Amino acid sequence: MITVQEHLSRIVATVQRLPPIGLDLLDAQGCVLARDVTSQVALPGFRNSAMDGYAVYAADVAGASVTAPVSLPVAGDIAAGNTEALRLAPGQSMRIMTGAPMPDGADAVAPVEDTDGGLSRVTISARVHAGTHVREAGEDVAAGSLVMTDGTRLEPRQIALLAAVGTGEVRVTPRPRVVVISTGDELIEPGTRPGFGQVVDSNGLMLTAAVRALGCIPVRVGCVRDDAATFRSTIETQIRQADAVITTGGVSMGAYDTVKEVLSSVAAMRFDKVAMQPGMPQGFGVLGEHQIPVFTLPGNPVSAMVSFEVFVAPALRLMAGRPQRETPLVTAVAADAWTAPAGKVQFARVVLSRNGSAVRAGDQPGHTVSIAGLQGSHALGSLARANALAVIPAEVTSVRVGDQVSCHPLGPIPEAP
Amino acid sequence: MITVQEHLSRIVATVQRLPPIGLDLLDAQGCVLARDVTSQVALPGFRNSAMDGYAVYAADVAGASVTAPVSLPVAGDIAAGNTEALRLAPGQSMRIMTGAPMPDGADAVAPVEDTDGGLSRVTISARVHAGTHVREAGEDVAAGSLVMTDGTRLEPRQIALLAAVGTGEVRVTPRPRVVVISTGDELIEPGTRPGFGQVVDSNGLMLTAAVRALGCIPVRVGCVRDDAATFRSTIETQIRQADAVITTGGVSMGAYDTVKEVLSSVAAMRFDKVAMQPGMPQGFGVLGEHQIPVFTLPGNPVSAMVSFEVFVAPALRLMAGRPQRETPLVTAVAADAWTAPAGKVQFARVVLSRNGSAVRAGDQPGHTVSIAGLQGSHALGSLARANALAVIPAEVTSVRVGDQVSCHPLGPIPEAP
Repeated sequence: MITVQEHLSRIVATVQRLPPIGLDLLDAQGCVLARDVTSQVALPGFRNSAMDGYAVYAADVAGASVTAPVSLPVAGDIAAGNTEALRLAPGQSMRIMTGAPMPDGADAVAPVEDTDGGLSRVTISARVHAGTHVREAGEDVAAGSLVMTDGTRLEPRQIALLAAVGTGEVRVTPRPRVVVISTGDELIEPGTRPGFGQVVDSNGLMLTAAVRALGCIPVRVGCVRDDAATFRSTIETQIRQADAVITTGGVSMGAYDTVKEVLSSVAAMRFDKVAMQPGMPQGFGVLGEHQIPVFTLPGNPVSAMVSFEVFVAPALRLMAGRPQRETPLVTAVAADAWTAPAGKVQFARVVLSRNGSAVRAGDQPGHTVSIAGLQGSHALGSLARANALAVIPAEVTSVRVGDQVSCHPLGPIPEAP
Repeated sequence: MITVQEHLSRIVATVQRLPPIGLDLLDAQGCVLARDVTSQVALPGFRNSAMDGYAVYAADVAGASVTAPVSLPVAGDIAAGNTEALRLAPGQSMRIMTGAPMPDGADAVAPVEDTDGGLSRVTISARVHAGTHVREAGEDVAAGSLVMTDGTRLEPRQIALLAAVGTGEVRVTPRPRVVVISTGDELIEPGTRPGFGQVVDSNGLMLTAAVRALGCIPVRVGCVRDDAATFRSTIETQIRQADAVITTGGVSMGAYDTVKEVLSSVAAMRFDKVAMQPGMPQGFGVLGEHQIPVFTLPGNPVSAMVSFEVFVAPALRLMAGRPQRETPLVTAVAADAWTAPAGKVQFARVVLSRNGSAVRAGDQPGHTVSIAGLQGSHALGSLARANALAVIPAEVTSVRVGDQVSCHPLGPIPEAP
């Protein structure tokens, strides 16, 4: 029996960030930059107006007020999109729109609200200081400066900045392509009503969705029978198109545990009992010429989901160039009591609520945790109701009401009712 | 001038949850159920073994121990996927795999670890109680019971449960299709290097990515010139395929504000100054036969992003059948001082860190907030660096070091260095 940390450490030490590829900016959403980006241009690219108004020499309107307005001739009209360099003479003004290039010489913009909006002459009734409502070229980003570093994840605002500095294609770490294979003679395809002895392949859909929710590309292969030759040929074919493979089922102590039977002969694969509940039987290693990471998860759906969260998701994040963990554990106060196995880390399916009322006098409101229902490793009902896994250390055998419990969120945490 | 809350309330009162559609389970990931789902089947569907081992009558092994093992004949072998109903006679056993159907009569499973693993006879060296390692039919989900309610968001675990109860297609609220239109003569397509007076359409990419990040379907139309006829025909064409339209630019005080010029004549459109910084000029209303919601956002990129977060995202979530707000505001302690405009809510671009060290003696570690850089509404550099918007109420004109500040997260919040 090995610990959760030992198994995770072995996985983390084995997987590698994928080699970079070039992608169009919008296609790279959610990916991380694979190299630093330096700006080709300055932002703003040219000195421009921050307001709709009139470009002026500040000195010309230094005395302007409501009672003593200043009148100036309007020598021109500058729209955004004007690509002509203009020059303003002292004692004159030009009408200018937000984002339009400032005429040379002008050092301030009088907002239209402080004028009569005139077209040939304008009356300005408030002073402006030099620099007011003027955006200097490069004040946001200097040309040649480092804009974004290797490892930055590209979300909408990062994509906007890269577009603004002239980037069309970016060099990023790609989304891992992850093949999902379910094994078991009892499995039938989703959408089919199970007969006696049959079970719908809910694992295949769940892990496909989980891979996608993580920002990776799932490839669902579907159900493979408990037959060594079929499984061997399936995995040999699939590793050619995959960055990682996840299997479920066939790794326990049973007589028909095909995954274990086929893969235990591979030197780079290892099958272990991990001191956790659920999820004890785990296999991990690399396969094929390209040393593709293969995760063989247990077939019980709760075990498969817990194993995905604890072992596979951190590995896929690292392959994608992201941090191993992105959501912090949440400490919560137990509103229920439950037991936990000695010598194994328990991942209990729980409902976590925010700002729950204090369970005991003196507790601060914060997070409250209650058990989500039946805790068997086959119990999909409570898994779907749960929004977190309570992580109970191996040496703890019971959780009492009021205990502090560390929780691994699986989704958004609602306000308590 | 209207308040942020007044503008948001008008939007929220106008938009409606989209009519339901049927989708394959995997295609419905991220959507919310549009009706309750009742299970067609029980889960488990049949009484089955929770372990690899031997199905027995508990009474037959009541006295078993390491020093006094019990030997039983093995009358059969039951694999997962066995669809035949079997019957165990008292005084006998059957080898059984995890998930395989229990033979009638048997009431417990002796785990393989507590046996010699025999094939014709088995020696069992530990007692089991009636019911041990047996999963009863329907113990997780009873046939005919309510499995999931209207409004539940379909994440991997919910998809797994729906698959398990025999669902193939689900009735869900669809992802809104959102058309993104940028307006402005100064705009050029991303990937092009801007010349004097030109600006890359970073808004179009940013909002397209933001719509997608929210789980909606973006349709980017690209840049439209400041020309009334072109804009009118573009929007008339686009509302035919859209559930919502977002425009940027052309809504301010300028002489070439085409969006406002074209849409102000529509009775169901309204253009307002909203008491916020950035993002003051806002338009909202409905257009066309199907009363498609149209959001006309200001063209400065920071204004556009803030407006999206504050007004558009809540509306799109409601249209998708989700809560108006999904991420709670975070209270943080200011590590910087800054000023805010009187009479307007300020949405400052800030960097929020978790578990920051206490700024003042006596403060609890929690969250710390510092200003992300240049706060102009054109400043994309600081927008990309920020991970939150600090929401400073209209009556507050300065934030001091140590003040409590309410923050709207824009992305994951890192641990403080």
